[in-house]
Amino acid sequence: MFEAAELGREISKSDYKAQLPDLRAEILQTQFALSKSNRPVIIVISGVDVAGRGDVVNTLNEWLDTRGVETFSFEKTSDEESERPDYWRYWRSLPARGRISVFFGAWYVEPIRNYAYDKIDTANMDDSLGQIRRLEKLMVDDGAIIIKFWLHLSRKEQIKRLKKMEKDPNALRRVSKRDWKHVKLYKRFAAAAERAIRSTDTGDSPWLLVESTNPYYRDLTVGRTVLETIRKQLELDAIASNKNSPETEELPASIQTSNQDITESSPKAALTVLDHVDLKQKLEPKEYRKQLKIYQGKLNRLVWDAYTKKRSTVIVFEGWDAGGKGGALRRITQAMDARLYRVISTAAPTDEEQAHHYLWRFWRQIPRAGHFTIYDRSWYGRVLVERVEGFAQEHEWMRSFLEINNFEESLVNHGTLVLKFWIHISPEEQLRRFEEREKIAYKRHKLTEEDWRNREKWDDYKIAVNDMVARTSTNYAPWTLVAGDDKKFARIQVIKTVCERMEAL
Amino acid sequence: MFEAAELGREISKSDYKAQLPDLRAEILQTQFALSKSNRPVIIVISGVDVAGRGDVVNTLNEWLDTRGVETFSFEKTSDEESERPDYWRYWRSLPARGRISVFFGAWYVEPIRNYAYDKIDTANMDDSLGQIRRLEKLMVDDGAIIIKFWLHLSRKEQIKRLKKMEKDPNALRRVSKRDWKHVKLYKRFAAAAERAIRSTDTGDSPWLLVESTNPYYRDLTVGRTVLETIRKQLELDAIASNKNSPETEELPASIQTSNQDITESSPKAALTVLDHVDLKQKLEPKEYRKQLKIYQGKLNRLVWDAYTKKRSTVIVFEGWDAGGKGGALRRITQAMDARLYRVISTAAPTDEEQAHHYLWRFWRQIPRAGHFTIYDRSWYGRVLVERVEGFAQEHEWMRSFLEINNFEESLVNHGTLVLKFWIHISPEEQLRRFEEREKIAYKRHKLTEEDWRNREKWDDYKIAVNDMVARTSTNYAPWTLVAGDDKKFARIQVIKTVCERMEAL
Repeated sequence: MFEAAELGREISKSDYKAQLPDLRAEILQTQFALSKSNRPVIIVISGVDVAGRGDVVNTLNEWLDTRGVETFSFEKTSDEESERPDYWRYWRSLPARGRISVFFGAWYVEPIRNYAYDKIDTANMDDSLGQIRRLEKLMVDDGAIIIKFWLHLSRKEQIKRLKKMEKDPNALRRVSKRDWKHVKLYKRFAAAAERAIRSTDTGDSPWLLVESTNPYYRDLTVGRTVLETIRKQLELDAIASNKNSPETEELPASIQTSNQDITESSPKAALTVLDHVDLKQKLEPKEYRKQLKIYQGKLNRLVWDAYTKKRSTVIVFEGWDAGGKGGALRRITQAMDARLYRVISTAAPTDEEQAHHYLWRFWRQIPRAGHFTIYDRSWYGRVLVERVEGFAQEHEWMRSFLEINNFEESLVNHGTLVLKFWIHISPEEQLRRFEEREKIAYKRHKLTEEDWRNREKWDDYKIAVNDMVARTSTNYAPWTLVAGDDKKFARIQVIKTVCERMEAL
Repeated sequence: MFEAAELGREISKSDYKAQLPDLRAEILQTQFALSKSNRPVIIVISGVDVAGRGDVVNTLNEWLDTRGVETFSFEKTSDEESERPDYWRYWRSLPARGRISVFFGAWYVEPIRNYAYDKIDTANMDDSLGQIRRLEKLMVDDGAIIIKFWLHLSRKEQIKRLKKMEKDPNALRRVSKRDWKHVKLYKRFAAAAERAIRSTDTGDSPWLLVESTNPYYRDLTVGRTVLETIRKQLELDAIASNKNSPETEELPASIQTSNQDITESSPKAALTVLDHVDLKQKLEPKEYRKQLKIYQGKLNRLVWDAYTKKRSTVIVFEGWDAGGKGGALRRITQAMDARLYRVISTAAPTDEEQAHHYLWRFWRQIPRAGHFTIYDRSWYGRVLVERVEGFAQEHEWMRSFLEINNFEESLVNHGTLVLKFWIHISPEEQLRRFEEREKIAYKRHKLTEEDWRNREKWDDYKIAVNDMVARTSTNYAPWTLVAGDDKKFARIQVIKTVCERMEAL
C-alpha cells in the first residue's frame, strides 16, 4: 500500500508559489459556497511521525477562512472526557453544517498506536475499526463530507528528519525517546496503519495517501484535494436540486483540469508506482533457459506439495495490452499437472454474469482445495477498464476497493494464497510489439482496434494502476509489479515470485 | 425485542381466504414487473425451531411464479463448499437481476447456532456479523432488495407445538433430542438471535419480526411484506428514472392502504405491544405513599452509591401527551441530590442543534462519572414524532434504529446504566386529562393545539411505538412500558424499576 507513497513526488518552490494565488482564491470561494450549504466537512490529518501533520494543519488554517474552521487535536484526555464514552469527545467536536473541523488523527490515533504497541489484539482492533466505520457512515448519511489524509514518509526519510531536528538548535520541537522508539517500531506502525486504512477506506469516506517528503507537493496535494472534494459535492448537490447555484457556476475549472494543474508544470508530482519499475532489467537467453528450468522444476514440486496439503492458490494477471501476460502465464502452467489448475480468461461478461454483482463471476471460479485458479485479467477490471472507460460510475469503482480487499481477505482467511501481477512495459515497447503483431500473420488476430484506443488512454490507466496498487496492495495479498520490456526477465520474475510465495507458507 | 412478537396477533381462516385471491394476483403482477427490472431479490426466512419456516417457504413458492424464484437451504456443507471460503456457497446462490432467491436462514444460521452453543465468543460473533453486514451492503449497493424475516414463537408455544408433534403419528417430521435441547437453550438462542438481528438491522436491509403462532397471520404478513417491499422499490425506481412504468401504474393500492388490508378486518392482527399493558392496574393513596417513601429512600442510597462507584445513569422518558412523564420524573429527582442529576427537556432543536446530526444534542448531555442525565423526551423523537409527522424521511428514520442501538451500546459499554420508559395511557384517559387541563387555570398552559393534533394520529403513533420497542428494546437497554392510567401506579412502577436496575448492577 505505502509503496505508492514512496515515489519521489515533488514540486519546486517556484511552481508552488506560482500556483498558490489561484488555489487560495478558489479555496476561499468554495468555502464560502460551503457555508451556504447544509454539509459539514471533516478533515482528518493522520500519518507517520514528523511527516508534517502540524504543518499541514497550519497551512489549511492559513488558506481557509478561519471563521468557518476549527482544529481539534486529542492529545490528552481530559477528566470531562474520560468520564464519558470514548466517542463523546469526537461528537462534541463535530462541525455544524457549512463548517469545517480539522482533526489531528482523530479516532484513528488510538487504535493504530495500541495495535502497533501490541496493547490490543486483532479482534479488538477490528472492533475499533468497525466502530469507526459506523461513526463515519452515520455522519456521511447525515450529509457530511469526510476527507482523510495519511501523510507518509519512508523509514529512511523519517530517520533523516529526526537526525536533522536533533542537530538543529532552533527546531520547533525536541526529538524524544519516543520518536526513536517509533522508528524502531516502524514496520508495526505501518502494518497497523495499513489495517486501519484498508478497513475504513469506504467509497463514502476514502483515504488519500500523500507522499510527504516534499512539503510543497504535500501541501498542494492536500489543499487541492480539499478544494476539489468539497467543490465536487456542492456541484453534485446543485445538479440534484436541479439548479446551478451561482457560487459553483463561477468556479473556473473542472476537477480533472485542476488535478493537472499540479502535475503539468511539475512532472515529478505525477510519478506513479509504475515509474519505479526498472524496465531496463533483462536476462540473456542462456541464463533465462537455465533459470526457467530450475524454477519450473521447483514449482512442480511445490504444486504437488500444495495439493497434498490442500492449499489453494489464486493468481491474477493484469497488465498493459501486449505486455506478455499470456507468455508468463504459460511458463507457469507448463510446470503444473493439468488437473490441478484452471485458467480463466476474463473477457466481456456473459449475460448471466452481467445480471449479478461484478464479483460473482470470479467467486464462481474459486479453486477447490489444493487447486489453482489463474485469472488472465480479473476483478481488477472494475478499477481499471471500467473506471477509465466510464463503464462504472465513480461511486461504484470507489467502493469496489473495499469490496475487493474484503473478497481477497476471505480467500486468504480460508488459507488460499493470493498472488497478483501487473506486467509493466513502456509505451515505446508496446508500440514496437503492436507493429510486430501487424507484420506477423499468426499474431495479427491478437491486435484489435481496441488495443489502439486503449493506448491513447495510457496516462489515465497509469493513474488507475497507481490507485489500484495504493488501495489494494495489502500485506495478505500484495501486488508484484513486473518489469516486462524484456519478456524473459518478466517470465522469470513471475515464476520466481510464485515459488517464493509458496515456499514462504 | 421479541416482546413485540408475542402479542397474540392473529387472522381468522375466513379472513385469510378472503384476502388471498387479491394478494396472489398482486404478487404475480409485481413479480412480473420485477423480472423486467435490474434488481435481484433476496428473501431470508429465519426464526426459532418449529415456527414454520418450511411452511412459509412453501407458501412463497406457491404464490410466486416458480420460474423466477429459487430456494436454498444450507443444511449440509458439501465437499465442493467446504473446500472454499465460507461465503462461496452463498455467492453461488445469489439471484440474477429480476429474480428471487429464498434462503432458509442463510448466513445467519451458523453464527446464531454457534453463539447459542457457546462455540464462539462475542468477538467472533461480532466478526461474523460484520462480515454479514458487508455482504448485504455490497449486494444492496449493487441494487439488490433484501427482505429478512424472523419467525418468532414464545418458548411456551414452542413446547406446545413439539408436544403436539410427538403425539401426532402423521407429523411431517419427528421430534428429535436436538429439538428438546434447543428448547432448553431457548434463552441463549434468543440472546444470540437478538444480537444478530440488532447488529444487522440496517436501514437498507431491515429485519421483520413476525409473530408466528397463528399461521394465517404469519403467512399473510410475509406475503404482504414481500409484495410491498418489492413494489415500493420499483415505484421509487420509476420515479427516479422520471417516468412511470406501465407495470407500476396498474398497481391498485399504495403501501399504507395494503397494510391496513390485513388489519382492518382482523383487529387482532393489529395488536401492538401497547395493547398488552394492563391499564387497569392502580394503587390506593395510602399504599402509594407508603411505597413512595420506601423507594425514594432506597433510590437516595443507590444514587450516592453510584456516585461513589462512579457509575453513570441515563434515564429516558417517552410517552403520550398528558401521560404523566413530568410527575413520574419528579418523584425520582425528589430523591436525588441536585448536584447529581440534570433533566434535559427535549423541545424543538436549537439552530445549533439543527445544524448537527440528530444524535449530537443528546451526546452533549451524557452524564459525567457517577451522575444522572434524565431526558424528558429524547433521541426517540426521531422514530416517533419525526416519523409520524414526516419530518424525517423513511430511509432516515429506518437507519436510525441501528444508530440508536449503537449509541446506547457505547453508553452501556462505558458502564452507563440506560433506562427507558414509555408511559402508556388510554385515549379515553388522555381526553379526560386534556379536558381537566382546560378547566384548571394553572394547568391550561400545558395544553396546546399540537396536543389535539397529535391525538388524532394515535394509531400512527401506536405503530411507531411498536416498531420502536421491537427494534430498540435490547438486552442491554430494554424498554419498560408503564401502565399510566393511574398516575400513582405509574410513578411507583418507574421508581421501582430504577431501583431494581441499579441494584442489579
